[in-house]
Order: sequence, then structure tokens, then C-alpha cells
Amino acid sequence: MRLVTYRAEVAAAARLGAIVDGNVVDLARFGTAVGVDIPSTMIEFIDLGPEAVRSTSALLNEYRGKLPFGVAVPASNVKLLAPIPRPRKNIWGIGLNYVEHVAESSRSLDTSKELPKEPVIFSKPPTTVIGPGDAIEHNKEITQQMDWEVELAVIIGTRGKGVKEADALNYVFGYSVMIDISARDCRRAGQWIYSKGQDTYAPFGPVIVTADEIPDPHTLDLSLTVNGVTKQSSNTRHMLFKVPALIADISKGMALEPGDIIATGTPDGVGAGRTPQEWLWPGDTVVATVEGIGELRHPVVAV
Amino acid sequence: MRLVTYRAEVAAAARLGAIVDGNVVDLARFGTAVGVDIPSTMIEFIDLGPEAVRSTSALLNEYRGKLPFGVAVPASNVKLLAPIPRPRKNIWGIGLNYVEHVAESSRSLDTSKELPKEPVIFSKPPTTVIGPGDAIEHNKEITQQMDWEVELAVIIGTRGKGVKEADALNYVFGYSVMIDISARDCRRAGQWIYSKGQDTYAPFGPVIVTADEIPDPHTLDLSLTVNGVTKQSSNTRHMLFKVPALIADISKGMALEPGDIIATGTPDGVGAGRTPQEWLWPGDTVVATVEGIGELRHPVVAV
Repeated sequence: MRLVTYRAEVAAAARLGAIVDGNVVDLARFGTAVGVDIPSTMIEFIDLGPEAVRSTSALLNEYRGKLPFGVAVPASNVKLLAPIPRPRKNIWGIGLNYVEHVAESSRSLDTSKELPKEPVIFSKPPTTVIGPGDAIEHNKEITQQMDWEVELAVIIGTRGKGVKEADALNYVFGYSVMIDISARDCRRAGQWIYSKGQDTYAPFGPVIVTADEIPDPHTLDLSLTVNGVTKQSSNTRHMLFKVPALIADISKGMALEPGDIIATGTPDGVGAGRTPQEWLWPGDTVVATVEGIGELRHPVVAV
Repeated sequence: MRLVTYRAEVAAAARLGAIVDGNVVDLARFGTAVGVDIPSTMIEFIDLGPEAVRSTSALLNEYRGKLPFGVAVPASNVKLLAPIPRPRKNIWGIGLNYVEHVAESSRSLDTSKELPKEPVIFSKPPTTVIGPGDAIEHNKEITQQMDWEVELAVIIGTRGKGVKEADALNYVFGYSVMIDISARDCRRAGQWIYSKGQDTYAPFGPVIVTADEIPDPHTLDLSLTVNGVTKQSSNTRHMLFKVPALIADISKGMALEPGDIIATGTPDGVGAGRTPQEWLWPGDTVVATVEGIGELRHPVVAV
């Protein structure tokens, strides 16, 4: 399924939907119409566990082309929000997880040129999240080095502590796109949270594709443009630590929980790594794409 | 008020209480008895804003010594939980915020000997939180360098973005104690989250003292013992960045929200700074105290 959180009208509540044949099916209303309880928010749906994904997907297939009256609206006519508008904890970020990005970072930032021996984990507060199309806020009193990073986002479906790599993909609910915006001049004593944690610094969406539709997350092209010019273009097969390794590593010490988001790192081509360096400024438009998931398009706006 | 989250019986739900004359007053039941709606959880109470603190405190004073029947139990006869058992986001940690601790860290860790020019911010996931008396989990496959840090915790009461220092204390709901447990050998590319973010690494409590009872948070003795031996002993007046500066700094880029917790940094005397270095091991007992708030006592247990 391609799951979204959306508003059908400006002041309407955020609802869980599934995109089917160009329409957004309101899953709670669809459930009511066919006699099954389905929650109205993404996080409640994730909390139900993998069986809810299987049964809801089967039901949608059964009713495809013959949906009950009044449960769908055209996808072009809704406002998409971040799939999880307010995560219940920090987002897990992974630094230096593509080989070429390790090299460019060591030349331009304060990181080592050696490949990391373990995943480099950092966090972004839930207040960083914005939905498709929302403005990335540029505060010139805080940064003159705002940078872009396109990433594959992994959404956890099942609580896991000490997860084994071989079993790790069973803990994944689905996949999405995240832009890990970074203010390179806001690192402090090496810590990245002020650099990566400011409000609006995590554009997220446009959909979560459930894991059953992406059996191998390490075959996906991902790219990013600024004002139409391609800046990043790679494939998730170049990840240094693959998704199962990330899940196993984090969960060894820190329980992963349903709704957790792991932003799996960015390939080369960030602004800090260019000669001369390039940064985002108000008026710019950033577009990030991951194959099979979708596109995020965001204006940078002065605040 | 001295507010707690507690269970009156083993399987009972966690409830919001206020400690009055050695008893825990169940605030929701007290409210019902006197005709006022008071929520049954700390986070809902914080969400009500400062007027709820004032009016509830006044009501408790009015009924002191003549509480309605059935609203209180002896404080010695309850299980205290962390005041906010599950924060709604990452905890904000502040590194290198006491002058002597900056010096000891530069000798033994990989930090600069210069005083930081801006607060060094990091984060701990909400899964780090444990309540008074709960076990700090020591996983010898992950760390052989588990360290202690006693800290004054600030609990935010009101959403703030771009808060001015002069106004910052008005955003504080109250104060508590946190131990910022750190696995010094789990830093990665300088990032601290794996070092400070493991499950059980944030003992928190035993109470939140509302801000009206601590007009100046920079006059408090704080100390920590391991197995009865004093390791840290200082006063919050030695903070490099005081509470208003921390609130102003964080909120410049990252919205602070009701229920947010800021662990304000630790004084000198940590294990990493000793000659020879000392670490926590299973069987140890850590006791942390902040004047006027209370004491946290925790066993270290192998997992």
C-alpha cells in the first residue's frame, strides 16, 4: 500500500489514507463501510502490527474498482501532510553512510576520511518534521550554511531490542523519503543536533510505501535537485551500513518502537562537499526523489 | 508543589500526585472531591499551563489538614515512577556546562579545553527514562566505561520559540533531578547519542518541584555518590550557561514544548575524569541529590 496522512479540506482533521488508482481512500471510512475497524491515523495503524497491513491491503484489493460510496477523493485534491505528522520521539539519523559522502565530508567538514566502523547515529527532534510542500525555514541569524541531504527513511513497525540482522526487515513497516536539512555552521563541540535539529529541517513524505511492496530497499535510485539542477544522484545499494545492520545496531542498546523513523544517510553531492561550497537560500526550491516512493518539493523561505 | 507520578498498587495505573505533609494526594480525585477538574497524569497537567499550577496549589493550601476523605495515601506506601514516565520527544542534554567539568573532560575525553562559546546540546531518546529505584542496565557487550553525571533537570511548561533570556524562567514548569548515564566508549564520530541514549540511561525524579518554589535555580547544591562514596559535589551556581541562557539558545532554532526536559549539565567528578578512571559496574549503587528537590537511588544491574 501507498499510505498517506492528508486533509480533504483546509480545516479538516488529518486522516489516514491509501492511494489507489489516483484516489485517496479514507481507510477508517472504508473500514466502516465494509465492516472492519481501521484507525483514522497512521500511528494507530502502525501500532496494530503487520497483520493489519496484510488484511487492509487484501481488503483494498478485493474492493478495487468497486469502492463503497463516499470513501475516496481524488489524490490531486487533497493536502498531503507528513505521513507521521508528529513522531513520538526523536528521528534516528545516520551520518556518513555512503562511501563517496564520507570522502566529501572529510574534505569539507570535520569528519574522518576513514569509513566509520559502526553507524554514526544522531537525532532530530520531532519538531523538525514538515509535510510535502511545506516551507523549509531559513533563519539568517542562525545559519549561512544550510545544506541538503536526500535520504531513504525507514519506518519501524514492531518494537525491537537486540534485533538480529537476519530478522531485521521483519521490523520494518515501510519506507518513505526524508530530506535531512543541515545548518553546517551550527555544529557544537562536534554535536550535530543544532545543525540538523531545527524546526522544519526534516521534510518527510509524500507517502509511506509498506514494506511488502519494497522487498529489497537497497536497489532504489535517489536524487535531489536545487532549482532544477541535479545535485545528488545515487542508489541505496551504496549504503555502507544497510537497513538490517542499522536496525540491529541501534536496537542493541536502544529499543526501536513502532513509528520510529530512521533516516538512513545521504549519498555524495551535498553543498558542503562542492567546490566552491553551495548553500540553500530563501527562494530556492529543493526536490528530493526516491525511486518507487515519490517526490518531496519544498521552498526555502526566510523567517 | 512537589508533584509525583505514582502507583498506589502494583498493577494500578500511573497517577499524578502532590506530596503534602508526608502523603501523596491524588490530584484528580482531590479535584473531583472539591468540584474542580484536575487531570490524572503529569503531562496533561503541564499542558494546562501556569494558571492550573497556581489554582491547584491554592486549593491544596486551602484544604491542608482537612483533605476530603479518600484522596491521599502515605508517601512511604507508593511506588514512585519518573515524573514524566514517557516524554513526548527527546530529552535535551547539555554537555560541558560546568567549568571544572570542561577541564576534566579535556584531559580524559576528546573534548576541547576551551570553554564552549555556545551551549553544547545533545539528546537522549525518551526510552532512556527510568523512575526512582529502577535498575540502570549494564550490558558488558556494549560498554566497559559506564559513567555517572548528576544534573538539575528543567521541565518546560509553555511552548516557546525565540524566547528572550529575561523572559525565559516564565517558560519553566518546574525542576527535577536526572542522572545522565554515559557509556564513554560508545561515542561515534564524536556523536554522543549512543553513549548517552541507551535504554535506562536517564534516571529521573523523584519529584518535580514547581517553579514557584524555586525562584532561583542557580543556588542548589547537587551531589552524587557511588556505593556511599561522594564522587560529585557542587552547586548549580557554577553552570557556565544558566537556565535562561539555555532556554533562549535552544528555542532560537528549536521550539521548546510543554513537557520538554532539559538536563542542564554536570559538575566535575565524573568517572572519566579520575586518575585512574572509574566506571560503574553491576552491583554498584548510584545516589544523586539536588538540594530542595530530592534524591535518586539506583542499582546498576547486568543485562
